[in-house]
Amino acid sequence: MSGNTFGTLFAVTNFGESHGPAIGCVIDGCPPGMALSEADIQGDLDRRRPGTSRHVTQRNEPDAVQILSGVYEGRTTGTPIALLIQNTDQRSKDYGQIAQQFRPGHADFTYWKKYGIRDPRGGGRSSARLTAPMVAAGAVAKKWLFEHYGTVFRGCMAQIGGIEIPFESWEHVPNNPFFAPVADVSRLEEYMDALRKAGDSCGARIRVTASKVPVGLGEPLFDKMDADIAWAMMGINAVKGVEIGAGFASVAQRGTVHGDSITPGGFETNNAGGVLGGITTGQDLDVSIAIKPTSSIISPRQSIDIHNQPVEVVTKGRHDPCVGIRATPIAEAMLALVVMEHALRNRAQCGDVIGAPDPGQSAAEGTSPQASFL
Amino acid sequence: MSGNTFGTLFAVTNFGESHGPAIGCVIDGCPPGMALSEADIQGDLDRRRPGTSRHVTQRNEPDAVQILSGVYEGRTTGTPIALLIQNTDQRSKDYGQIAQQFRPGHADFTYWKKYGIRDPRGGGRSSARLTAPMVAAGAVAKKWLFEHYGTVFRGCMAQIGGIEIPFESWEHVPNNPFFAPVADVSRLEEYMDALRKAGDSCGARIRVTASKVPVGLGEPLFDKMDADIAWAMMGINAVKGVEIGAGFASVAQRGTVHGDSITPGGFETNNAGGVLGGITTGQDLDVSIAIKPTSSIISPRQSIDIHNQPVEVVTKGRHDPCVGIRATPIAEAMLALVVMEHALRNRAQCGDVIGAPDPGQSAAEGTSPQASFL
Amino acid sequence: MSGNTFGTLFAVTNFGESHGPAIGCVIDGCPPGMALSEADIQGDLDRRRPGTSRHVTQRNEPDAVQILSGVYEGRTTGTPIALLIQNTDQRSKDYGQIAQQFRPGHADFTYWKKYGIRDPRGGGRSSARLTAPMVAAGAVAKKWLFEHYGTVFRGCMAQIGGIEIPFESWEHVPNNPFFAPVADVSRLEEYMDALRKAGDSCGARIRVTASKVPVGLGEPLFDKMDADIAWAMMGINAVKGVEIGAGFASVAQRGTVHGDSITPGGFETNNAGGVLGGITTGQDLDVSIAIKPTSSIISPRQSIDIHNQPVEVVTKGRHDPCVGIRATPIAEAMLALVVMEHALRNRAQCGDVIGAPDPGQSAAEGTSPQASFL
Amino acid sequence: MSGNTFGTLFAVTNFGESHGPAIGCVIDGCPPGMALSEADIQGDLDRRRPGTSRHVTQRNEPDAVQILSGVYEGRTTGTPIALLIQNTDQRSKDYGQIAQQFRPGHADFTYWKKYGIRDPRGGGRSSARLTAPMVAAGAVAKKWLFEHYGTVFRGCMAQIGGIEIPFESWEHVPNNPFFAPVADVSRLEEYMDALRKAGDSCGARIRVTASKVPVGLGEPLFDKMDADIAWAMMGINAVKGVEIGAGFASVAQRGTVHGDSITPGGFETNNAGGVLGGITTGQDLDVSIAIKPTSSIISPRQSIDIHNQPVEVVTKGRHDPCVGIRATPIAEAMLALVVMEHALRNRAQCGDVIGAPDPGQSAAEGTSPQASFL
Repeated sequence: MSGNTFGTLFAVTNFGESHGPAIGCVIDGCPPGMALSEADIQGDLDRRRPGTSRHVTQRNEPDAVQILSGVYEGRTTGTPIALLIQNTDQRSKDYGQIAQQFRPGHADFTYWKKYGIRDPRGGGRSSARLTAPMVAAGAVAKKWLFEHYGTVFRGCMAQIGGIEIPFESWEHVPNNPFFAPVADVSRLEEYMDALRKAGDSCGARIRVTASKVPVGLGEPLFDKMDADIAWAMMGINAVKGVEIGAGFASVAQRGTVHGDSITPGGFETNNAGGVLGGITTGQDLDVSIAIKPTSSIISPRQSIDIHNQPVEVVTKGRHDPCVGIRATPIAEAMLALVVMEHALRNRAQCGDVIGAPDPGQSAAEGTSPQASFL
Repeated sequence: MSGNTFGTLFAVTNFGESHGPAIGCVIDGCPPGMALSEADIQGDLDRRRPGTSRHVTQRNEPDAVQILSGVYEGRTTGTPIALLIQNTDQRSKDYGQIAQQFRPGHADFTYWKKYGIRDPRGGGRSSARLTAPMVAAGAVAKKWLFEHYGTVFRGCMAQIGGIEIPFESWEHVPNNPFFAPVADVSRLEEYMDALRKAGDSCGARIRVTASKVPVGLGEPLFDKMDADIAWAMMGINAVKGVEIGAGFASVAQRGTVHGDSITPGGFETNNAGGVLGGITTGQDLDVSIAIKPTSSIISPRQSIDIHNQPVEVVTKGRHDPCVGIRATPIAEAMLALVVMEHALRNRAQCGDVIGAPDPGQSAAEGTSPQASFL
Repeated sequence: MSGNTFGTLFAVTNFGESHGPAIGCVIDGCPPGMALSEADIQGDLDRRRPGTSRHVTQRNEPDAVQILSGVYEGRTTGTPIALLIQNTDQRSKDYGQIAQQFRPGHADFTYWKKYGIRDPRGGGRSSARLTAPMVAAGAVAKKWLFEHYGTVFRGCMAQIGGIEIPFESWEHVPNNPFFAPVADVSRLEEYMDALRKAGDSCGARIRVTASKVPVGLGEPLFDKMDADIAWAMMGINAVKGVEIGAGFASVAQRGTVHGDSITPGGFETNNAGGVLGGITTGQDLDVSIAIKPTSSIISPRQSIDIHNQPVEVVTKGRHDPCVGIRATPIAEAMLALVVMEHALRNRAQCGDVIGAPDPGQSAAEGTSPQASFL
Repeated sequence: MSGNTFGTLFAVTNFGESHGPAIGCVIDGCPPGMALSEADIQGDLDRRRPGTSRHVTQRNEPDAVQILSGVYEGRTTGTPIALLIQNTDQRSKDYGQIAQQFRPGHADFTYWKKYGIRDPRGGGRSSARLTAPMVAAGAVAKKWLFEHYGTVFRGCMAQIGGIEIPFESWEHVPNNPFFAPVADVSRLEEYMDALRKAGDSCGARIRVTASKVPVGLGEPLFDKMDADIAWAMMGINAVKGVEIGAGFASVAQRGTVHGDSITPGGFETNNAGGVLGGITTGQDLDVSIAIKPTSSIISPRQSIDIHNQPVEVVTKGRHDPCVGIRATPIAEAMLALVVMEHALRNRAQCGDVIGAPDPGQSAAEGTSPQASFL
C-alpha cells in the first residue's frame, strides 16, 4: 500500500537503502514444491550488478543473494521466501552537501517534501540499487513460468541516446556490455566514452518480450495485462514512457492495418503486442520503455538547497552515465513478475475453464482445445 | 482483484455490460461531508456520451446517472456511493454471427479463451461503454480535489490518425467535437468524413494534465504516481502507449537538458511531467497516451470462428471510427482517480509531515513552508 | 479498504442504506460458467427477510433480488455480478428526534463522531438490513462450493437469551421461526412474547457449520481460515464473540483431551472445529457466535444528544426484539464467503499440489491421495 | 494475500521458520519522523522470549532485533522498516520421525495436505516462534500510538487451565512469569509444576485492553474495529475464541442492561468493549481470548503417519506446557497493529472531519469538540 509491495498473489515486498546494511525482499505466495537455490537467482543478479564494464557505475558489489526462509531441502514450501543481499561497498563519508541540496531531475526534492526527512546516502531508497531485489524476485517467477508454460523472457537495448540500434539477433545480447542485439557495438562504445568525457548522461530505450505466454491471462477492466505491465515498467527508476505492441505508432495506423488478422494457424502480425482487451492472446508480449538520462552528473546544474536558496549542484561519485544500460534484466524481471501474478490469478478464477492453461504442462504440450492454436 | 476495482482508499468498483439492463459503479472511501448531487457528475458524462456528433457512434444514450447511496441531504456520508446508469438504446437482436467470430484487434478472442463464455452483445464487458462509470467516479474525485487543493484536470486531442494537432489554447477544447485545442477543426472534419466513407478507423493521441497538484503524492518504489498513471491510462480501452513529461523524447535527451533546473521560484521546465522518483513535484502532471484504431470496422477482415475455421469478418452496427475522440474526458477521469487515491494515501502516512498538503486549504492558500514555492 | 468489500478473489462490495432507494452488492471474481439465476439467490433472502413471524420486525420487504450484470444466457461470465434489492417499505417521516440523539448500544454515536454526518433513517448504513446483500452474495458462493466440493452450510439457534437450546436435529431448523434445532419451540415463543411485552430485547447464540470442506484451505500466519471466519462473524451486526470448535471451553481442557486423535479413517473428535494451524482439516467447520441484545428498544434509556445534553431515549418503530433470530442465514452466508475466498486462493497458489482439492469433482468423489481419508 | 502480511496501510510482512537462519518482518507504511531504535522494540521481545522461567520452553534465544532499513539518524524515513532476528538455538538434528508423523492438534497434518511439503524442524512456519516479529512490529505501532494519542496497551492472564484468575491490579503483571494480575501466584506455580510432571499441557484465557483509543476508528460494514481485532487475535497460534466487551455473556443480557448508558461525562459501563457499530467509542478496547492447550506433549497420542498408517506420537523436545503464558505481549502487539492500521485509515478518509482525532496531539490534550467528552 505504501508502494513497496509488488503483486497480490505473488507479492514481493522490497526493503532497504543504497547504503544501509542490506537490501532484500520477501516473496509471499510462491507455489510450493519448486526446486530453488541461490544459484537460480544469482545469474540475473550478475547481469544487473554494477562494476562489470567501464560504461556503468564502478561501485563494486557482488550482490550475493541469501535465501533466509521458504525453502526446505531445496524446494519451496509455499511460505514466504526472504532474500537478503548485503551492501558491501558503501562510501557514505561525505554526504553533507548532497543532503542539503536537490539534484535536478532527482527524487531528492520530492522525498524531502513528502517525508520531511530523507536518507541521502547513495540516493537512499530512491537508488536504482533497489532494483536488485526486484531482479532476484523476478528470477523466481521466471523459473516457475518456464517450468509450467515454457515461458521465456528476453530484453535488449533498442536505442541509446540518439543512436537507434537495429535488431539483429537475441544471440548478441549477452556478448556486449549494452545488452545490444547487434554483433558490433563499437559505435555504442565510442558514444558512451564521449559522453563520459563530457560529464553528461543519456537516455535509452529498452525492448522486452515474453514468449510462450499462456492465452487468457489478465483482467478485463482495470488490471489488464498491459495496464499492469505499464505500471511495472513505469515503476522502474527513470522510466518515462511505455508502449505495448505498435505503441505510439498505432496512432497513425488505420484499423485495417492495426488489427492483427487471425488464421487457423495463429495471428498474422503482432501490433497488439500480445494483449487484446487486457488479456493475453498467446502471442509474444512485446514491450518498449523509455529511460531518461541519469540525473546524477558532474556537469554543474542550477538548483536550490533545503532553505530554498539557489545553489550550483555538481554530483561526484560513482554513477551510471546511462542507467538504461543495466535496465534490461530489470525490465525482464518486472515483466516476469506481472505474468506470474496473472498466471496465479487466472487459475484462481478460471481454473475450471476447459482449455484454460494447465499449470502441469507447458503450453506447447497441452492437450487442451486451444493448445494446437498456440 | 479480478480487475474491476480501481484504487484502494478511493476504491471504485465498476459493473455492467454494454447491453445489460444497467451499468454503474460503487465508490468506497469518499471522504464525508462533501456536497454532491447527480448534477455534479452529469457534466462529464455528457462530454463522454455517444451520439453528440457525426464523428462518433450514433447510439443514443442519455447516460443519466442516479445516486443510490452514500449521500444524505446532499452531502456524502463516508459510506459507499453507488452510481447507476440505465442502458436505454441497446439493439442486440442480431448478435448470432458476431458471437461465433473473433474481430481482429478485438477482445472477442481473449474473453472467449479466458472465460470459456462471453456476452457478445455490443462487446459485452469489453465495450468502451464501461468507461461511463469511470467518468462518473472521476467527477466525484475531481470535485473533492478541486475543493481541497484547487486541482484542475484538462485534456485535449493531440493527434488524430496522421494529423498532429498543435496546442493553441485550452479554450478551444469544448468548442469542437474532437476536444482539439485549436480554433479551426475543418481539416479534422474532412479527415474523419473521408475515413468513415472508406469504412476504416484511425488512432489518436490524447494529452491530459492536472494543475495545482500537491507536492509529495505518490509512493517510492512500486505505486509511483507515474506508475499508477500508466496503469490507469493503459487500462482505458484501446490505449497502447503512455508517456509522462518528455516521455520517449527523453531517450535522446542529455542529462544536462532533461533534468529540470530548480530556482527559488520553482522549476524552470517540466521534462519530468510533474513526477520525480514517483512522487509529485507540485508542477503540472503531463501525460500523453496513444489510442489504437477501432477494431469494429465495416471493411472485411480475415479471421477465424470459434471452431477455428477461417471467416471474413465485417462489423456492421454503430461504432466510433476513432474511439480516441471520446477518450479525453475518460483520461481526465482516470488521472483524477489516481491523484485522489494518492491524496488519501499521503495523508494516511504523511499527515504529520510539516508542510504536508493540508486537506482543509487549497495549495495556493497554504501557509505551509513549501507553499510559497509552489 | 473503507470496510465495504468482503474478500479479495471473491470480492463482494456492499452498498446502500436502510431507507435509501436500494441496497445491493457487486461480486467480482466469480468463476465463469456457473448456472445462476435470481431463483438461486432468493431462497436464502427469504429465510432472512423481515416480517415472517411475530418475533421479528414487522417491516414488510419482499427483498426481491435483481441480477444487473455478469450473467449471460443463464451462466456467469466471470465479470462482476451486480445484485440489486429495492427498498420498498421505508417509513422515514419522523426521524427528527432520532437524528439528534444517540441510542445506547447503537452505532448512532460512533458514526456521528467518525464521519461528522450520518443518515439516521432506519439506522442508515448501520442497519442490519445491509446483511441482505451479504446473504445474496453468500448464496452464490454456496452454489459454487456445493457444485465443486459438495460443501453444505448449516446454521441454527443454540441459545436465546437465558435459554440454552439442545441440538436435536438439523431437520427442525426450517420448521420454526427461530431456526431452532428442536421439535418443540413453545418455550421460546413464550420467552419472546414476554420479552416483547416488557419492551426489552435479548441476545442469542448461533452455531454455524460447513460440511465437506476441502482439506488445505486457509493461510498459515494471518489469513488463517479461523481468523477470517472470526473476522467475518464479528463483522455481522451485534456479534460480540466468536468460537471455533471447542472455543472457550478449550481453556480448561488438557492437551491429552483437546488434540483430536487421528486414525487412518479420519479424526476421532473435532475440538479443532475443522481448522489446525489456520488450515482446514477436512472435518466440519464448527463455529459459534454471540449476538448482543437489540439496542433499539422501547424501554427508556439514559443518553445524550448531539449537543452533549442528557436525554431519555425511547425507540419506537419496527425493530427485532432479538436480532439473533434472523442471524442464522447471515452467519451461513458469511461462512460461505470465507470458504469461497480461500478455495480460490488455494487453487491459485497450491493448484499443483498432488492431492489438492480439484475443482472439477466433489471431495467425496475425488481420486486424489487424501480423498479416501476424507 | 498468502497470509503473511498484516494490515494494508501499516503493513507487516512476516517471514521465517523456527529453525531457519533468521526470522523477521518488513513494516511498510510507518509514518516518517518518529524516533526509533532497536531498544524501543527489544523490551516487548524480551517479555515474549522463551527460557525466562521454568514454566515455558527452555529454548534459549536472545531474540535480539536488528533494524535493516527505514531508519536514518534515529528517525523513521517513511520507507520499509526491515527487522531481523537471528535464530541461534536451533536443534534440528533429529526430526526424522516428526517429519513422518502428524501430531494430534498440530498444523503438521494441514501443512502437509495444503503444500505437499513441510519444514518439520521445530514446527517450521507454524511455530509460535513466528510471533516474535509480530511483537517487534507491534512495538513500533505502540510507540507511534502512544506519542500521538497517549494510547496504552495492556494484557494479563485471566485463566490458566481450570484456574480463573481474579483481576487485582495491572501492577502485578510484570512481577510474575504468568502475566497474572495478582500478587500471589503460588497456586499457578503448583498447577504448572504438576502439569509438567504429568506430561500434559493446558489452555489459557488472556485479556488485553487499549486505553486512550481515539473515537471514530474502524469501518462500518466489514473491516469493523472488532472484526479486525477478532481476525488478529484468532490469527495468534492456538487461539480458539475471541470476545469483545461482554462477549458471550451478552447472550443472556437484556437490552436494558447491555446497552451502555451515556451521560455528558461519558459512558456508564463498557459492555460494548469500546466498539459500537464497528467503530471505537473512545472507551477502552476490552478483548478476551481463549488459547488451547499445547499440542506438542510427551504423553503418547494416537495418530497416523504420512502413509496413513496408525502411529503413537510422543513429542519430545523443548515445548511450552501452556503456550498461553507467553501470549500476553503477543495479544497486545496484535491489538496495537489493528489500532494503528485504523488510525491511518481514519485520517485518510476522515482527516477533514471536525473533531476527528488529530495526529499531532494526544486525545487528552485535544481542543476538538469531542475531546472533553473523552
